[in-house]
Amino acid sequence: MYTLYYSPGAASMLVHWVLLELGQPHSLERVDTGAGQQKRPEYLALNPNGVVPTLLIDGKPHFEAAALVTYLADRHPEASLAPAPGSAARMAYYQWMFHLANMVQPLFRQWWYPHEPAGEAHAEAVRSTVAGRIERAWQVLDAHLAENGPLLLGKTLSVADFYLVMLMRWSRAMPKPATAWPHLAAVAAQLKARPSFATLYQREGLTEWA
Amino acid sequence: MYTLYYSPGAASMLVHWVLLELGQPHSLERVDTGAGQQKRPEYLALNPNGVVPTLLIDGKPHFEAAALVTYLADRHPEASLAPAPGSAARMAYYQWMFHLANMVQPLFRQWWYPHEPAGEAHAEAVRSTVAGRIERAWQVLDAHLAENGPLLLGKTLSVADFYLVMLMRWSRAMPKPATAWPHLAAVAAQLKARPSFATLYQREGLTEWA
Ligand SMILES: N[C@@H](CCC(=O)N[C@@H](CS)C(=O)NCC(=O)O)C(=O)O
Ligand SMILES: N[C@@H](CCC(=O)N[C@@H](CS)C(=O)NCC(=O)O)C(=O)O
Repeated sequence: MYTLYYSPGAASMLVHWVLLELGQPHSLERVDTGAGQQKRPEYLALNPNGVVPTLLIDGKPHFEAAALVTYLADRHPEASLAPAPGSAARMAYYQWMFHLANMVQPLFRQWWYPHEPAGEAHAEAVRSTVAGRIERAWQVLDAHLAENGPLLLGKTLSVADFYLVMLMRWSRAMPKPATAWPHLAAVAAQLKARPSFATLYQREGLTEWA
Repeated sequence: MYTLYYSPGAASMLVHWVLLELGQPHSLERVDTGAGQQKRPEYLALNPNGVVPTLLIDGKPHFEAAALVTYLADRHPEASLAPAPGSAARMAYYQWMFHLANMVQPLFRQWWYPHEPAGEAHAEAVRSTVAGRIERAWQVLDAHLAENGPLLLGKTLSVADFYLVMLMRWSRAMPKPATAWPHLAAVAAQLKARPSFATLYQREGLTEWA
């Protein structure tokens, strides 16, 4: 049994979306990040980093959005959202999961929390620099899709694509959003057409980028 | 057959170390990052991000250090450097791998490349801020080890520990290095006592933090 601690549209959205895709029953606990609930002792006992998501699996807390969906895809292989462990495709799968986790998502942390790298006095400088860095990340991903797409693993859908589309969504109000790159736009269009996307939006109360 | 593109002590060190642990034959190609070799067209054709490591597996290039070692541990299960896919321990394994990749390694990118978040004019501010953020990351990891150690997955050694120790090594010249935390220091001591560590140092020509 799964319980997801989430905030609408946050990194928890990836886990929520994958739970819906897998058809796994789960309950939702909303964390009011605007009110700082993620920094209260009760929540820090579940997740020492004070961020969403946290997922209770059979009552035990686990964190890191990318780790959670990698585990869920392995645990429910009937949905075929990850290449089999040991297969050659598994290398590309890990590569893109860790690429998004290590080189793309941290740039969005800077976009959403520009005071973190160097304090409030330098927040504007961070915010204007990171936009270009995120654009270069889209460029690398779009070039990969142009050559090896239409999805990150070619013809095979995987949780890496859901992760990519969540991050793309975060760029929606940027000077040049991810959908300006044609192969990225095609991945988003394909995943947004899935019934799980409408359910996700309805459950999280999302409207933007529908 | 494996060919590793590396630079001494860089993120490639994790892959090199795990190849030695697995006893897998491999050849090494040194990339002179000081001379900017990682940004030349020949290298960018292997790794569009222009960073080390890149690993050729049967002639095909792959990247992202954490992804490479996750794949290698799966591919050579006889060394038992990762819990079996689908097992409960696999969740904790993914959690710490992605935690290091998403929340710790990117801070070191800021430590080593402080001009990246906001340009040269703000580099000093980044460098002085990131030290405290890295210390808070060690605090979370040390508290986890105190309660659930001695290794990241308890008694079971995994590639997550090698990843942790590589990152710890990067803090060696910081105001408060990772070894100031006792449970982290114990992980480093245990892993540095393995014969693979001496071989790694010798092959990469490393001396500091021996
Ligand atoms: N490494 C974490 C990062 C999660 C994260 O940064 N979550 C943000 C929302 S997208 C958050 O909870 N922010 C509130 C805060 O940092 O206080 C993961 O991927 O799960
Ligand atoms: N996400 C990559 C990052 C690798 C990385 O940042 N490598 C550094 C050395 S530790 C590098 O190649 N720097 C040279 C440069 O950025 O030009 C990975 O983990 O493999």
